[in-house]
Amino acid sequence: MSGMKRVLVYGGRGALGRSCVAYFKEQNWWAVSLDLVANEDANANVLVVADADWAEQERSVLSQVEEVLEGSKLDAIVCVAGGWAGGNSASDDFIKNSDMMIKQSVWSSVIASRIAAKHLGSGGLLALTGAKAALEGTPGMIGYGMAKAAVHHLTQSLAAPKSGLPADALVAAILPVTLDTPMNRKWMPKADTGSWTPLDFVAQLFYKWAEGSDRPKSGSLVQLVTTGGVTELIAG
Amino acid sequence: MSGMKRVLVYGGRGALGRSCVAYFKEQNWWAVSLDLVANEDANANVLVVADADWAEQERSVLSQVEEVLEGSKLDAIVCVAGGWAGGNSASDDFIKNSDMMIKQSVWSSVIASRIAAKHLGSGGLLALTGAKAALEGTPGMIGYGMAKAAVHHLTQSLAAPKSGLPADALVAAILPVTLDTPMNRKWMPKADTGSWTPLDFVAQLFYKWAEGSDRPKSGSLVQLVTTGGVTELIAG
Repeated sequence: MSGMKRVLVYGGRGALGRSCVAYFKEQNWWAVSLDLVANEDANANVLVVADADWAEQERSVLSQVEEVLEGSKLDAIVCVAGGWAGGNSASDDFIKNSDMMIKQSVWSSVIASRIAAKHLGSGGLLALTGAKAALEGTPGMIGYGMAKAAVHHLTQSLAAPKSGLPADALVAAILPVTLDTPMNRKWMPKADTGSWTPLDFVAQLFYKWAEGSDRPKSGSLVQLVTTGGVTELIAG
Repeated sequence: MSGMKRVLVYGGRGALGRSCVAYFKEQNWWAVSLDLVANEDANANVLVVADADWAEQERSVLSQVEEVLEGSKLDAIVCVAGGWAGGNSASDDFIKNSDMMIKQSVWSSVIASRIAAKHLGSGGLLALTGAKAALEGTPGMIGYGMAKAAVHHLTQSLAAPKSGLPADALVAAILPVTLDTPMNRKWMPKADTGSWTPLDFVAQLFYKWAEGSDRPKSGSLVQLVTTGGVTELIAG
């Protein structure tokens, strides 16, 4: 890894995470995957213990990250962990699903911020994953919207002075509508996939930002709006 | 309680909660306090088990609420539970404090929403507590800002169609700057208390909304801005 640029992909075994690990490696970056299960394509793996509490997850993750980095700094941290669950306030699963959404989106994004505070180099990238839908109320998926709104707020806090991130770091969140993943194709077989954002597009976008190209302002919530297979970026 | 209007105060043993219970009772409402400890001034008490997880808290709270209501509906639910903790991403307490903020603000607000979905009467009030500071990034208190941003988003989701709340319910959040509580006086002895919002003002505001007076639009985030002891409402 000496001489190579280094990226950590949080959620590196998911569909988008695997695309990111693969794409950065093709560009000759060293890539570490952080997930519940190892990504064998990554140069190194950090594993999260699923049933540990938030603070225990942090302790275990930070100690493994320190070990694999061997004193080096990261040039980019990309957090694409997350999930989806619906439900309004009348649903018996409202709290179970809200809890899951907070764990999947907020816990991961906050631990990614801790990794950034400790190991991101000056001028590095921290990219988080929000959701375009959460820019407004989401009555049919309240827990999901709350968790993503928290991630949006985290992005804005981290971009402000004295947030604890290193000097000149770029923090930004992508706000997708629907990503073109195998799971989404399986569960929504009749959908118009021309409005779904290809995973390669997202991996390339992170890579450009990581290399310092076309960077949005730090704190940006960047909507990914895909029409007819073409994705437009709208930075809020 | 028959013939009386009914309010549930979540956090009814805290400084603001006690003011709310006292004020509604003075107006001849029946008031139930929900908190870790009983409020002896309330007509009834529902107790939260502190170390239970979110779903367990919900189960226990819903069963107790059902018992004290004896089939009646609530006319108002006021959630003033919450707390404060600072810390940026470089703080070793960042995750511990973020976890506490989510439990104190998000868990309580979401359980209050569940109570509303099950027991709030048509046209009733659900009032939640956000924070003016969280309308922007909060780099020095990141966990607090995230949790309050989640409450703001919850408010907007609950106000939208098909949120699970009863017809014509009003849901709104107050966004205080600093409340004039004994704890704040103790910890900030040199502060300009003329910019702090008196607890009575907040209790009266909830009461007016509960009685159907001067109601903001459902989903409003109502900033409480106090200057020289006078509080102005700014509905966003």
